[in-house]
Amino acid sequence: MLPMTSSSQLIEKAVEAFASLPGIGRKTALRLVLHLLKQEPGVTERFTRALLDMRMNIFQCRICHNLSDEETCRICSDPRRDHTIICVVESIRDLMAIEDTGQYRGSYHVLGGVISPMEGIGPDQLNISSLIKRIAESEIKEVIMAISPTIEGETTIFYLSQQLAPYGVLISTIARGVAFGGQLEYTDEITLARSILGRLPYSR
Amino acid sequence: MLPMTSSSQLIEKAVEAFASLPGIGRKTALRLVLHLLKQEPGVTERFTRALLDMRMNIFQCRICHNLSDEETCRICSDPRRDHTIICVVESIRDLMAIEDTGQYRGSYHVLGGVISPMEGIGPDQLNISSLIKRIAESEIKEVIMAISPTIEGETTIFYLSQQLAPYGVLISTIARGVAFGGQLEYTDEITLARSILGRLPYSR
Repeated sequence: MLPMTSSSQLIEKAVEAFASLPGIGRKTALRLVLHLLKQEPGVTERFTRALLDMRMNIFQCRICHNLSDEETCRICSDPRRDHTIICVVESIRDLMAIEDTGQYRGSYHVLGGVISPMEGIGPDQLNISSLIKRIAESEIKEVIMAISPTIEGETTIFYLSQQLAPYGVLISTIARGVAFGGQLEYTDEITLARSILGRLPYSR
Repeated sequence: MLPMTSSSQLIEKAVEAFASLPGIGRKTALRLVLHLLKQEPGVTERFTRALLDMRMNIFQCRICHNLSDEETCRICSDPRRDHTIICVVESIRDLMAIEDTGQYRGSYHVLGGVISPMEGIGPDQLNISSLIKRIAESEIKEVIMAISPTIEGETTIFYLSQQLAPYGVLISTIARGVAFGGQLEYTDEITLARSILGRLPYSR
């Protein structure tokens, strides 16, 4: 594929800016730049203003580390939610995915990753001490580990369960098993084995 | 697919900004926003600065309508190029594609589209009067029509050839035929017929 270089330095720099974003190649970047050039200058102004506003004014919630427009996020400051349950997630994306189900009305704690010696991520790089502080200082009944069932995820759950043991809080993990719509024959052995061992009484 | 809505208005607006660009959906927009949030604020500042700089300071070349950092584009102001030949193109993208071949050393004229009664684009919406003015006022030997061989493209070439007839300038079109690597059996009839009628003596 041809590089499609422009004779304009301004365009080249704008193309490079877009192409520096993950998953955006030079061709796509050029298409986006030419799109902005076709629109009124106000379109580019509003686009860049929205991004700058977001990046400069966002807070990390002082309680759960969710991203927020205020010092305390909407979930942590919502009196209708159950703040005695904490759902521990790896990332903001996972928090958003669970929120989208509309099935959970407790609070969250965003770890910011999982323990991964391979990538040099130990417990100190994660939001673990703030989780322990929350559990020590407020009345928490249950901590739900909504962490991916990978080796790193399981390690993190094991580490957290040890750290939280002294506080006598109920620790649960999200259910693992064959996904809805999943085909048994294509399910990996570990998942299938667990879904048999963890079988439940049938109910309609 | 879940909407993945954020509890932050700032994030929602930034996601909407990215998702307003062509070919970028909400999922991708969210990924880009979370990417910018992971980086230093300076990354977002430089990104938005490059786009604003480009959009606010770009010129349309006063001669050929190419996009340019100056009033006259680099190609039009380059003394090493042959300014007696004009290659007429529909768009900046086509100009860039031809430049990338490195095979053309003349000048350009960007029409800004092709005549399309269906889309309400007539000759007055295109940069045609400035092309005629160039040919009337300076010494032009040849005008190359590098326009897509579509119905609208052919209409535009026909219209231009009539408008330019009084100036006695040589008008040529780019060669049409079976593309390199193209399979004869999958080539459409019109192209195949033209490539037979327009056959050339074999040379190595």
